[in-house]
Amino acid sequence: MLELVQKGNKIYAEDESTVSILKKGFYGTEFDKKLFLSEIEALYLMDSRNAECKSDAGKVSLFDFFSRFSKKSKFIARYFAYKDWRDRGLVAELPDKSYKEPLESPVKKYPSQEIELPKFKVHGTFFKSDLTTLIKEENEGKELYEKYWFGQYGAYKAADRGQLNKLDIYETIYLANKGTLILNDIKKEEVEAIATKRHKDFSSLYSVYEDWRNKGYVIKTGFKFGTNFRVYFPGARPSTGSGKDWTHSKHVIHVFPKNSRLLISEWARAIRVAHSVKKTFLLAVPGSQAKSSAKLDFVLYHRHGGEADNPSNYPPHFAMLALGEEEYLGGSDLAAALQETARRKLELLLAIVDRETSVTYYIVRRIILPKSPQEYYEIDWLQP
Amino acid sequence: MLELVQKGNKIYAEDESTVSILKKGFYGTEFDKKLFLSEIEALYLMDSRNAECKSDAGKVSLFDFFSRFSKKSKFIARYFAYKDWRDRGLVAELPDKSYKEPLESPVKKYPSQEIELPKFKVHGTFFKSDLTTLIKEENEGKELYEKYWFGQYGAYKAADRGQLNKLDIYETIYLANKGTLILNDIKKEEVEAIATKRHKDFSSLYSVYEDWRNKGYVIKTGFKFGTNFRVYFPGARPSTGSGKDWTHSKHVIHVFPKNSRLLISEWARAIRVAHSVKKTFLLAVPGSQAKSSAKLDFVLYHRHGGEADNPSNYPPHFAMLALGEEEYLGGSDLAAALQETARRKLELLLAIVDRETSVTYYIVRRIILPKSPQEYYEIDWLQP
Repeated sequence: MLELVQKGNKIYAEDESTVSILKKGFYGTEFDKKLFLSEIEALYLMDSRNAECKSDAGKVSLFDFFSRFSKKSKFIARYFAYKDWRDRGLVAELPDKSYKEPLESPVKKYPSQEIELPKFKVHGTFFKSDLTTLIKEENEGKELYEKYWFGQYGAYKAADRGQLNKLDIYETIYLANKGTLILNDIKKEEVEAIATKRHKDFSSLYSVYEDWRNKGYVIKTGFKFGTNFRVYFPGARPSTGSGKDWTHSKHVIHVFPKNSRLLISEWARAIRVAHSVKKTFLLAVPGSQAKSSAKLDFVLYHRHGGEADNPSNYPPHFAMLALGEEEYLGGSDLAAALQETARRKLELLLAIVDRETSVTYYIVRRIILPKSPQEYYEIDWLQP
Repeated sequence: MLELVQKGNKIYAEDESTVSILKKGFYGTEFDKKLFLSEIEALYLMDSRNAECKSDAGKVSLFDFFSRFSKKSKFIARYFAYKDWRDRGLVAELPDKSYKEPLESPVKKYPSQEIELPKFKVHGTFFKSDLTTLIKEENEGKELYEKYWFGQYGAYKAADRGQLNKLDIYETIYLANKGTLILNDIKKEEVEAIATKRHKDFSSLYSVYEDWRNKGYVIKTGFKFGTNFRVYFPGARPSTGSGKDWTHSKHVIHVFPKNSRLLISEWARAIRVAHSVKKTFLLAVPGSQAKSSAKLDFVLYHRHGGEADNPSNYPPHFAMLALGEEEYLGGSDLAAALQETARRKLELLLAIVDRETSVTYYIVRRIILPKSPQEYYEIDWLQP
């Protein structure tokens, strides 16, 4: 039986057997032959490991101990994220506890090249309500689709069914900016104003579209995959003609501007769709950083070769940000947490605790798109 | 070669061969030996069937004809939804064209019973930031979970790991309303105010939760399935103990209040997740009906026994509402479209046209939850 002692606002273990068991499990901080525990560690040991806690007034009840924290910010989310990680036999510690720092932060580099654009110009009619442009010149419109994959000639997956190329709103503005598209009866600035009125994040979305297109990527709608965009690596072309295989994208991009806020449940939904269709989910976090208070909740050790990490031999693997299903996450908060994680040379693990205290984990890994001023991350579902 | 004639704002076919082919395909309306076509029909025949259209000024170009409609509301969405349906060899007609009305509207009835609640009372501490209540009494808390499936005792899918029952915000208010839960240090009204501040649609969400719970259903978070709730039919209990199979839900509920508006792409995302995990998606449309202008776009014929419907022998199958990926849909607009569809004894088909003009179809079917004042619909993905 594990025995804990509460005195004032300190909780510790002092009997030899408890101290020895808890030290082996990497709980607490030893000082003066006592092992001092954080509140969350003590709660966990009482809740999940049947520890008994005594104060001068007698036995401390789990419910009463818990209830003290009812006014704290996201205490339940933090506790159950900690509990879930520990219940898996893995080690989690408070972020202020000292640890071996990893040698370098892992960053993946994406390829990049200059975009090639046609020499010809085309004319187009813009449809305000549909945010779509119809291209006048049939041959150039077809080439723009087949060779550069702008717009959709004919019908989707059936370019021979129909005779016109249709550009979406991002393609419209991009090609107008590059001088390839001349709009009839409307100015480019007016088109941008209409798009921004429809979607308040439009300028952020467009900045991401432009960034990837400029580096040779093909960017189309991610509608089928629940995201803003899907992505093809430089050189991709649509499959045309019969008998050819359809070109499949492997990446999707979703945009989460720093000045926006989103319910965690809505945020997770976008990742879930991408995951169900086996795409790599890329998160773009455009905009400038506002002051933000996002703090990391835990530092986590993972497995090495099938065994639980040993914090005395290895550096930690992740920094954890625990979030409840019903919380809002701001783009700036996420950016701040990512910055702090990078400073510690770790990877960020988002632990989302739903209304049933079930925890879903997502790893967030920084990627580099050469010459890009923007921040991009790969997000992956993790089963610890 | 199909030949069309444009005179003023009329478009028609008059040569015998064209009239005969188009009549067999159920295009146009015959009058005085001419077959008069709608603008969308004429565009489709030119774009997809190589029809030639002549006016007094010579050949009418497809692009010029199209461009005339650039100021119209969602013309591109309507046109490409029509085109997609026709390209599949199926018949679509304007909703004002007369047709055989089906004998009755199909409606599915769900079971319903009275909820059974425990005789005991429990006490709880409410955690503001987490919108969660911790129950004091361990034994009653356990029974509340095991027998009535309120809250989560222990841990998710591991009720033996931990010792307290946690109620989510809906369970908290429901059980407080029923007198089963007594909250410490906070009034029920204050809890409701906190929840409403967090989520502006909270009262709508709660009204749906309460409606199904009152009829014996078990309602838990739908977080893993991208929706507000998941649903178990009356009598469901959590699986407890080892060796027992986990009880799987087959339905999820998402709430779309009449006074809310949502981007179509976000709307579709929720359905997509549910579909990928093979759940039946139920849409709740709570609230009172505002004036709305949603008009049906087409009346659709589907297949009977492998053959395309023949509008001269059969009633139509669906009414179609065509929507672009980047449009907003209001709860009231959807409700109005559903009302009009029911008046015609049809089922509603939502045709969502993405930025590449690819079309995704969803059938919306009214269901009856006995004694409920609310409107509920099953939404299914359809591959025509």
